[in-house]
Amino acid sequence: MEIMNGRLNNGGNLNLVFDIYPLSNYYFSSKPGVSSKEETLGDRARRLKSNYDVHGMRTYVEAVILVELFKHPHLLLLQAKNCIYKLPGGRLRPGESDVDGLKRKLSTKLSADETQCQWEVVGECIGTWWKSDFETLPFPYLPSSGNNPKECTKLYLVKLPSSRDFVVPKNLKLLAVPMCQLHESRKTYGPIISGIPQLLSRFAINMVGS
Amino acid sequence: MEIMNGRLNNGGNLNLVFDIYPLSNYYFSSKPGVSSKEETLGDRARRLKSNYDVHGMRTYVEAVILVELFKHPHLLLLQAKNCIYKLPGGRLRPGESDVDGLKRKLSTKLSADETQCQWEVVGECIGTWWKSDFETLPFPYLPSSGNNPKECTKLYLVKLPSSRDFVVPKNLKLLAVPMCQLHESRKTYGPIISGIPQLLSRFAINMVGS
Repeated sequence: MEIMNGRLNNGGNLNLVFDIYPLSNYYFSSKPGVSSKEETLGDRARRLKSNYDVHGMRTYVEAVILVELFKHPHLLLLQAKNCIYKLPGGRLRPGESDVDGLKRKLSTKLSADETQCQWEVVGECIGTWWKSDFETLPFPYLPSSGNNPKECTKLYLVKLPSSRDFVVPKNLKLLAVPMCQLHESRKTYGPIISGIPQLLSRFAINMVGS
Repeated sequence: MEIMNGRLNNGGNLNLVFDIYPLSNYYFSSKPGVSSKEETLGDRARRLKSNYDVHGMRTYVEAVILVELFKHPHLLLLQAKNCIYKLPGGRLRPGESDVDGLKRKLSTKLSADETQCQWEVVGECIGTWWKSDFETLPFPYLPSSGNNPKECTKLYLVKLPSSRDFVVPKNLKLLAVPMCQLHESRKTYGPIISGIPQLLSRFAINMVGS
């Protein structure tokens, strides 16, 4: 946690401080789109099931990346053609560590060059969601005993430098969505993304230069 | 965070481990009830407003205390006569630190003797909720600029020893509610309590002796 500093409140209590920078500090461009598999929901469930039979539970790692706009923290989200919102990230390769996999996925989705892995993953996992089945919603706790989890999604906080370039595949749109819009918009964003304001509520978010 | 140990996953990633013990390790009895103010919602809002004018924003500190039952983590909640569920805790005195105030409130609500403050508050605040008004729901982010928060609720994880006595005022009922029941039961428990499974999802909960 080297990039976080303790800050003493009035009451003498320690909060973790997290610096964020204005959206206008960042530069955005696009690169050719990534081909996505055209498959039905049934095909997808069958593919995931056969993957599970071979590799066991698979882990998704996803990044919580914040910028400041109108003096309010905004979350970076990717929107696909089908109006599905996603956090930048993706599935780990078998044996890959969370942090290595997350950096690889962030470079694929947000950098010009996929070999560039300059992403600063902060501290430990900030939240975990499990699926006990491929077609169900995820839960923020392990399924009850006897029911092995099939998928796990782990969220990590990623700290941006004060300025950088983002290069996004043409078939995805990068959005900055305000905390106040995410919270209680579970129908639009799903349980994982709509819960992020809560997961971040333990940090003192410091809006640098706003 | 001295009582948490790092645990290495398969992937070589660090999770914070939190030990919990079976409910049957603990002993429960009661003591005379605390007299609670009989007031209308309107009276309450007026009282809180006049407090705010004198003292500024007041902070509530509340404890997340877990036990194990049926191999699933359960949260300790207090239920008042009116079917309102509350986390053990309460409002800080002006100038009091979060941890001192929380220990004082836990002793009032869960111990025989109010001078007993043997509670182990773990690490930093795990979540914060703000109210921009006395009658509105709390939000897990600061209200937008120009609107000073009126109240703040900070959640702390409290680690139980492997065994202890709880002594609860007669007008309150102490319950152990499973994570799976809290999650998505916002109507019953309100946004703060129903969000706790998510806040805890970053910890590896270790059920000792189950």
